Amino acid sequence: MAVNLAPPDPADIFPVAGVDIGIARAAIRKQDRDDVTLMVLAPGSNAAGVFTRNRFCAAPVTLCRRHLAEAAPRALVVNTGCANAGTGERGAADARATCEEVARLVGCAPQAVLPFSTGVILEPLPMDRLLPGVRAAHAALGRDGFVRAAGAIMTTDTVPKVRSRRIVLGGRDVTVTGIAKGAGMIRPDMATMLGFVATDAAVERSLLERLVAETADESFNRVTVDGDTSTNDSFVLAATGASGATALRTESDAGYSELRLAVRDVAVWLAQAIVRDGEGATKFISIHVDSGATVEECARVAYAIAHSPLVKTAFFASDPNLGRILAAVGNAGIADLDASRVVVHLGDALVAEGGGRAATYREEDGQRVMAASEIEVRIALNRGSAATTVWTCDLSHDYVSINADYRS
Amino acid sequence: MAVNLAPPDPADIFPVAGVDIGIARAAIRKQDRDDVTLMVLAPGSNAAGVFTRNRFCAAPVTLCRRHLAEAAPRALVVNTGCANAGTGERGAADARATCEEVARLVGCAPQAVLPFSTGVILEPLPMDRLLPGVRAAHAALGRDGFVRAAGAIMTTDTVPKVRSRRIVLGGRDVTVTGIAKGAGMIRPDMATMLGFVATDAAVERSLLERLVAETADESFNRVTVDGDTSTNDSFVLAATGASGATALRTESDAGYSELRLAVRDVAVWLAQAIVRDGEGATKFISIHVDSGATVEECARVAYAIAHSPLVKTAFFASDPNLGRILAAVGNAGIADLDASRVVVHLGDALVAEGGGRAATYREEDGQRVMAASEIEVRIALNRGSAATTVWTCDLSHDYVSINADYRS
Repeated sequence: MAVNLAPPDPADIFPVAGVDIGIARAAIRKQDRDDVTLMVLAPGSNAAGVFTRNRFCAAPVTLCRRHLAEAAPRALVVNTGCANAGTGERGAADARATCEEVARLVGCAPQAVLPFSTGVILEPLPMDRLLPGVRAAHAALGRDGFVRAAGAIMTTDTVPKVRSRRIVLGGRDVTVTGIAKGAGMIRPDMATMLGFVATDAAVERSLLERLVAETADESFNRVTVDGDTSTNDSFVLAATGASGATALRTESDAGYSELRLAVRDVAVWLAQAIVRDGEGATKFISIHVDSGATVEECARVAYAIAHSPLVKTAFFASDPNLGRILAAVGNAGIADLDASRVVVHLGDALVAEGGGRAATYREEDGQRVMAASEIEVRIALNRGSAATTVWTCDLSHDYVSINADYRS
Repeated sequence: MAVNLAPPDPADIFPVAGVDIGIARAAIRKQDRDDVTLMVLAPGSNAAGVFTRNRFCAAPVTLCRRHLAEAAPRALVVNTGCANAGTGERGAADARATCEEVARLVGCAPQAVLPFSTGVILEPLPMDRLLPGVRAAHAALGRDGFVRAAGAIMTTDTVPKVRSRRIVLGGRDVTVTGIAKGAGMIRPDMATMLGFVATDAAVERSLLERLVAETADESFNRVTVDGDTSTNDSFVLAATGASGATALRTESDAGYSELRLAVRDVAVWLAQAIVRDGEGATKFISIHVDSGATVEECARVAYAIAHSPLVKTAFFASDPNLGRILAAVGNAGIADLDASRVVVHLGDALVAEGGGRAATYREEDGQRVMAASEIEVRIALNRGSAATTVWTCDLSHDYVSINADYRS
């Protein structure tokens, strides 16, 4: 049911030198599916991450933040089926024990292990099954695991999300490959549910931290399915340096802008894939807001539209109900917005200006745009020069069905 | 389909001395239904109102605000079927012309007429049908119109919303009667879609203005169906003084607190009725947040729960998915919230404390509470002494159906 999102073609996905991946089936929540993923980074790798701002953030998120501050990461361990969120002291101890087991297997400090969990909230991790799963994943380590890992981290996703880009950096071939998961409880506030992007370029830690934050703001922080920020959002970018390319230290170093674009391409593709696979999605909608006073106010307008259940159901119905879009713009909380200057396009059709419907607008133009599976909404605020784009999906009967039945 | 909301019993609804009501069928949008309502207030009446903060507010809302500042109101005119919002200059002219026609009929200044519209956004008012409808409503003026008026202002409502209270003030019988409408695009920011409460008590203008704002904050500003603030929200409180009771001038005047409670009772009942009749609603949910630092942060937590599509679908499914409630609390934007101090009750069941599920919680207790048609969620933040309550409903298949089909 995903919107224009095909399953990955393994021929398009490239391994990253310095990254080994192992996958296991531990029956965390369901039998006979991949649910434990181990990624081991070569010594000398750097990594940086951004995480959910939800105050009920999961135990592994808290531990990830601490470990990233304490040591250079050597391994990432991910389980699906259980989010280990809202699990109090026991959840924290379980996350620590998982890292200790990985550290013993890999031969590194526990602080060099980053733990991630996704799945049902408020249930404890089944450690009696998870730890054997971690050992099995370690025994299965190999170079070509990204496609299978993209499947192993899914929850309500219907399509694995994985993307590769190759560039040449100072004469060396450099690869950027990333995976992500998420379909509901998606309104990332720093990052998506889970996103991992690795490159064999060499990037110093401080520059990598800037790159991950910038990239998140242009990708995972610009998508929403249902406006609910998850307890487990994490986005990690790792650079192994194993390509042999010269280490990048500042934004002006030769090759950095090419790497930045490749990382951005992978992250934006993954973020959009999450929306295309949004729970119950039948439409992929790009909301572009320009000529705002600040990027922040453009984002507020875009999210006011993207989060309106009335707008989302109108997209589902292919109904060009322009009044709902205007009402959402008016609700964005911009106190001094002059409604008479706002110009609204639906695809190529000018639909509203001067505080009302455009004189040239014809209902059949709106219906033609809304009938497509990919819809663009463009809002000009005409009060500045800032702009941003937010991607979202519609609200369908299937969204209600999926979320009314998820635990059963 | 409304949740525990019966049609009004006319025997429970009392006319208000000094208020005459006339109703007509003008075929604004549909044939053979009441769609124009005229309320005429006796000379010497006072009125005060609060209105939507949506920047795309409707033409009649803008004109109402201006007229209230310029003259003591003598008449309210309401049409359903067309919101006269997003209609630019033409919409403003149409609202003025409507007031002028009422003024001619009643014999007052146009500034003494308050216009209201509700219905589809972005369509122009059919003035060729509305003005004859206004004349027909004027010809039908009489004392017993509240019940029929409650039906005449409905859009997607399924039950007319009307409520009366009688009190004795300084030896005089005083009546408070109100009507309201609204079922979707409901997240009032100052007031509901449309709410009118009248009393034959005598209340001075400045005191009435305070009373209407206070009442809105405890009633219409505490309900939400779908988080979408409408372009037409208006709540007006009129005091005719026709009971002969002594005029109230300050909050310490004898009888004011009784009147305040009666007005609050009527407004809270009407606001809750809007939620009970919320589009597709199958559950009525009260979210009480206490021991917060400020009322504002309590409201943010309550609305974060009330607006979460994941929480709302869990209510629809009668699924005690506590993790979604905790995640919503964590998303309320309170940066320094200590999740480990938050205590959550579902009805009489303690469900979460110490950052996780309560040790004593049993799934069957949660299921028992969620299976009822009326559900109470109580959140203790344990960081202050402020509290508030927000009322909402669940998100069902019917919400999607109603809003995917509304214009057709």
